[in-house]
Amino acid sequence: MSTDPLVVFTPSGKRGRFPKGTPVLTAARQLGVDLDSVCGGRGICSKCQITPGYGEFSKHGVTVHPDALSEWNAVEERYDQKRGLKPGRRLGCQAQIMGDVVIDVPPESQVHKQVVRKAASARVIEMDPATRLYFVEVDEADMHEPTGDFERLKRALKAQWEIDNIRADLSLLSKLQPVLRKGKFQVTVALHRGHVESPAQVLEIWPGLHEGGLFGLAIDLGSTTVAAHLTDLETGEVKASSGIMNPQIRFGEDLMSRVSYAMMNPGGDREMTAAVRDAINTLAEEIAKEAGIDANLIVETVFVCNPVMHHLLLGIDPVELGQAPFALATSGSMALNARELDLSAINPRAQVYVLPCIAGHVGADAAAVALSEEPGKSDDLALIVDVGTNAEILLGDKTRVLACSSPTGPAFEGAQISSGQRAAPGAIEAIRIDPVTKEPRFRVIGSDIWSDEDGFDEAVGDGGITGICGSGIIEAVAEMRMAGLLDESGLIGSSGATGTARMIEDGRTHSYVIHDGSAKGGPVITVTQGDIRAIQLAKSALYAGARLLMDERGVDKVDRVVLAGAFGAHISPLHAMVLGMIPDVPLDKVTSAGNAAGTGARIALCNVAARREIERVVGEITKVETAIEPKFQEHFVAANAIPHKTDPFPELSKIVILPNPNFNTHGDGSDGGRRKRRR
Amino acid sequence: MSTDPLVVFTPSGKRGRFPKGTPVLTAARQLGVDLDSVCGGRGICSKCQITPGYGEFSKHGVTVHPDALSEWNAVEERYDQKRGLKPGRRLGCQAQIMGDVVIDVPPESQVHKQVVRKAASARVIEMDPATRLYFVEVDEADMHEPTGDFERLKRALKAQWEIDNIRADLSLLSKLQPVLRKGKFQVTVALHRGHVESPAQVLEIWPGLHEGGLFGLAIDLGSTTVAAHLTDLETGEVKASSGIMNPQIRFGEDLMSRVSYAMMNPGGDREMTAAVRDAINTLAEEIAKEAGIDANLIVETVFVCNPVMHHLLLGIDPVELGQAPFALATSGSMALNARELDLSAINPRAQVYVLPCIAGHVGADAAAVALSEEPGKSDDLALIVDVGTNAEILLGDKTRVLACSSPTGPAFEGAQISSGQRAAPGAIEAIRIDPVTKEPRFRVIGSDIWSDEDGFDEAVGDGGITGICGSGIIEAVAEMRMAGLLDESGLIGSSGATGTARMIEDGRTHSYVIHDGSAKGGPVITVTQGDIRAIQLAKSALYAGARLLMDERGVDKVDRVVLAGAFGAHISPLHAMVLGMIPDVPLDKVTSAGNAAGTGARIALCNVAARREIERVVGEITKVETAIEPKFQEHFVAANAIPHKTDPFPELSKIVILPNPNFNTHGDGSDGGRRKRRR
Repeated sequence: MSTDPLVVFTPSGKRGRFPKGTPVLTAARQLGVDLDSVCGGRGICSKCQITPGYGEFSKHGVTVHPDALSEWNAVEERYDQKRGLKPGRRLGCQAQIMGDVVIDVPPESQVHKQVVRKAASARVIEMDPATRLYFVEVDEADMHEPTGDFERLKRALKAQWEIDNIRADLSLLSKLQPVLRKGKFQVTVALHRGHVESPAQVLEIWPGLHEGGLFGLAIDLGSTTVAAHLTDLETGEVKASSGIMNPQIRFGEDLMSRVSYAMMNPGGDREMTAAVRDAINTLAEEIAKEAGIDANLIVETVFVCNPVMHHLLLGIDPVELGQAPFALATSGSMALNARELDLSAINPRAQVYVLPCIAGHVGADAAAVALSEEPGKSDDLALIVDVGTNAEILLGDKTRVLACSSPTGPAFEGAQISSGQRAAPGAIEAIRIDPVTKEPRFRVIGSDIWSDEDGFDEAVGDGGITGICGSGIIEAVAEMRMAGLLDESGLIGSSGATGTARMIEDGRTHSYVIHDGSAKGGPVITVTQGDIRAIQLAKSALYAGARLLMDERGVDKVDRVVLAGAFGAHISPLHAMVLGMIPDVPLDKVTSAGNAAGTGARIALCNVAARREIERVVGEITKVETAIEPKFQEHFVAANAIPHKTDPFPELSKIVILPNPNFNTHGDGSDGGRRKRRR
Repeated sequence: MSTDPLVVFTPSGKRGRFPKGTPVLTAARQLGVDLDSVCGGRGICSKCQITPGYGEFSKHGVTVHPDALSEWNAVEERYDQKRGLKPGRRLGCQAQIMGDVVIDVPPESQVHKQVVRKAASARVIEMDPATRLYFVEVDEADMHEPTGDFERLKRALKAQWEIDNIRADLSLLSKLQPVLRKGKFQVTVALHRGHVESPAQVLEIWPGLHEGGLFGLAIDLGSTTVAAHLTDLETGEVKASSGIMNPQIRFGEDLMSRVSYAMMNPGGDREMTAAVRDAINTLAEEIAKEAGIDANLIVETVFVCNPVMHHLLLGIDPVELGQAPFALATSGSMALNARELDLSAINPRAQVYVLPCIAGHVGADAAAVALSEEPGKSDDLALIVDVGTNAEILLGDKTRVLACSSPTGPAFEGAQISSGQRAAPGAIEAIRIDPVTKEPRFRVIGSDIWSDEDGFDEAVGDGGITGICGSGIIEAVAEMRMAGLLDESGLIGSSGATGTARMIEDGRTHSYVIHDGSAKGGPVITVTQGDIRAIQLAKSALYAGARLLMDERGVDKVDRVVLAGAFGAHISPLHAMVLGMIPDVPLDKVTSAGNAAGTGARIALCNVAARREIERVVGEITKVETAIEPKFQEHFVAANAIPHKTDPFPELSKIVILPNPNFNTHGDGSDGGRRKRRR
């Protein structure tokens, strides 16, 4: 009795018996082994490369003889001569199974390649983008069978890829006939399948086999900055990250002033919509240029943003978001054509996905954080804080997730601070104050050297020290409190600690001088009483939001804290706790999620199932509206004080906060001048 | 034992028992009685008016007592005072059943009003348009339940109308919030449901109850003219019909010259696309103005057209249609947004439906004729001929339908004829020649009086006699043959019949003078040998196409002939047969379908199921390509002769061909000057 040969695939370990002569690709498909193919087994695309193993495989109980696969054939020979195959490699669509064999699928032949979500937590995303490439051979036009070219393309996709229900817009149909003929009726199409129930849409078509790749943009549209990650839709690799200032700033620094602008100026919302869409086009052009790709290959874009930016992006007047009951025009996720958003810089048929909003004050950016950080899958109770001009706060575990937003104002971003500036080279980002001498030491963006170390002046360079950014002011206030320069109410110098030259009178209050650059014509950088008050207001709002969610959940402590957003990677957990920004937890329970909203956007870009997931999750989140909760005011007032905590965490000096190589964690779209210096 | 009251609805005869207190509208819905309601039973729209009958109804076995319905209530009183109810009428949503009752649903309260398809055959279309109005009460925005306004609108449509899967584009979402608030969260929406599987789309929204109606355009986009019927989507009534010249004429008179223009001139196809889209916008504006409606209320448009016009409308270069194998870019039906066709004159969210094409030479216009004339439902074998610059020919019955197109050229439209002109006032449209005296008598467009009758000169008016149109030249050639002025080969004067002053020498051939207006400075209208040859070519092509289908079907005669298109109502069946344009059938078996393509467009506009029907039918039609069939050439050559047939149909004089009041049957979009004179 003869038995069919046994095939074992590695690394999956999947195995099965197949009749002699079965192509390896066919066997892989039948076993559900992850082996790529764009050309459908025609020996054209070379995506299905495999490595057969020969000899004794005792682990698998198989001995592989040299003739286990069919002989190297003409198609493989031609491919090898034209492009080169690595030694030992075969094309899975050509090599046939002739005897027991162990076949390794190398990582680059696997469809579902894995993407490191972020350096810190190394979560992986399965690649399952909405848009993929398919090579097809279309029947030629025939007078005796007068269907249209598009109908024959659809028939080919159904026969060769089992994809049904396909549509194309007029701009694609208008190029279909010349491309089909140029490719001699062999073409590659980019097919978008955003939703199982919707038709698949042909976004682009190329003659023959398209090998130029396919790309998407994950865009984090913030009030201050617009940050984009240009992502390879086949591998998930980030090809370039770039940012641009949100030009709407000229209509108002914060969200509410933009809503006011729309209310006061007829057509003001349309002005702001046009401005931000222009900026996105500029950003898309720049990022494509930076990565050296044709912007026409960008066929997907995912947006995350707060509700006001969401409406202004979509061309909806945000006026209702400025007044109770803060009604969103629409809260659901949006699937759009790039053209509807005037995104002319990318493929004209590119598809846009906008994550759902959670509530009138809790936007698609918070949804993206939920997608990235998955509080609903957490065993312990996690508090996730995304700090920006508004703070998005999520609290939850497997049983239930709650969300709110809190109007922290722009102090945490260095705005409305006397020496404040946005995170850019020259800004003080970290500071320590000696409790005995009251002398400060600090570090500025663009340098790793502390101000009391050798080489600091050279490292800071010609630009000098220009101001203090968000993370710097937080540390400054916390350090001042720990050094006894502030009392619990936040008053500078009340405890008689004025006995240092660093403390100067400033009207009826005092200021603390961090750096005096006046001798060299530079600024005097101080922390004023007004700065302390601004930070107190911001941190009270943040803390009150977190407390409100804890009340709603019926707890008075959380198991861990995740810091996300502009500060994610820069804020010092210790200082945040000293200041009372976040509830106390052990220091090793505070982690940074970097730009979690941007990560959420990338996840939705790379995995279409994640879109359905976050749509479901958002529906299950309990929304808490801070504006109507009397307890919020109570917590806010109670949180104003800065209790005395003298360095309760001696391990502080061990904490090293690294910039995330993939993400801009300054939240301003720039790399803070780091990249140039370090590379 | 008490029994629930019996309710009998007329005219349907549907009956059932319902508990006391059941509103009449509820009973009607449960029985499937056709009783309209836009407001969903809220006493707002008054669409559900009914007339209860009282007394003895022996036919129904019911005696109706005066208290069979609940008393006239405050809602009815308010409505009556505000708008007035006809005596005896009640509102079906307010009146409750209290005893046995007979209830009449007057025609204006029936949803499925019926539309006379055309005067001649009185086919009815059930009104089931893709877009309808729905009044809904939406929950107000609530901070404690932070869904978007659109999500609450969707919830209301589901709860109140059982409609699910609804979407809206950004332009609608951008007006949603102000309209909801203006209407105090009561709004009317126009919902488009083009396909059961596709989402329903909100095309428009009005505060409160919208009573301004909803309209659609049925557009017959011809090579020469663009004709539109503005149709009420609630009643099916044609509010206005209008036409405009196709401005593409400046790029080429016939289709092939336009294809050539596209081939010879880079961007030429885009020029022609822009021109025809502009013309459609102009036409839409004019027709809305004529009907006195706001063009924003036009929310649907249906197009029928030949394949070249189809591609040029859609913005697809028609170059492949000019050469074998005549491949269409797409043959399927198209569902588009008006914006994709730059149709800016109508509602910006209007939906467009383009009927499917049958083959590279047999377009959506032929599909529309098939939808209108339904050869596939015919018991006897019908030949349907739609004559224009190309003739579309359908042959079929219940068992099978075949189709082809035949390149007749523009002679039938009066082009390339020495005294030819398009059908317009002053054109000779009918002619008779006395077989003995060889003298002609004729009629011109714009008058019903023959040239030998009193008052002819006055009726023709100042414009005088200007030329001869398509139907005139056909009759002239046939009459010349019957009068012995032509021989079988088409030669003028060969049979010695030159013995009349009407016959003049014209180079080496002869011409026949129909009218000499030179004394008054008018034209001399003749039929030249060249004219005869042009008509012979055209009629041979037409006949050969019909014969080819008959061959394919294996028959040598047909049971009946339907004439459609430009000539439908004007051509004389007798003359067409004398000339050999169409196969011989008894004269009473020749009918006119008027503008059958336009009728097909109206059917697709008024009944969404008809769209699925024609999509299915087109798939089942056997396409015959004349260009590659050697037999077509044989038939063409054989059909060149004009056999001798002296008035075999004495009943000719009884035939009166009436213009169709709904349709422009001149095919030029004008009314040929008739309407003004007659009304």
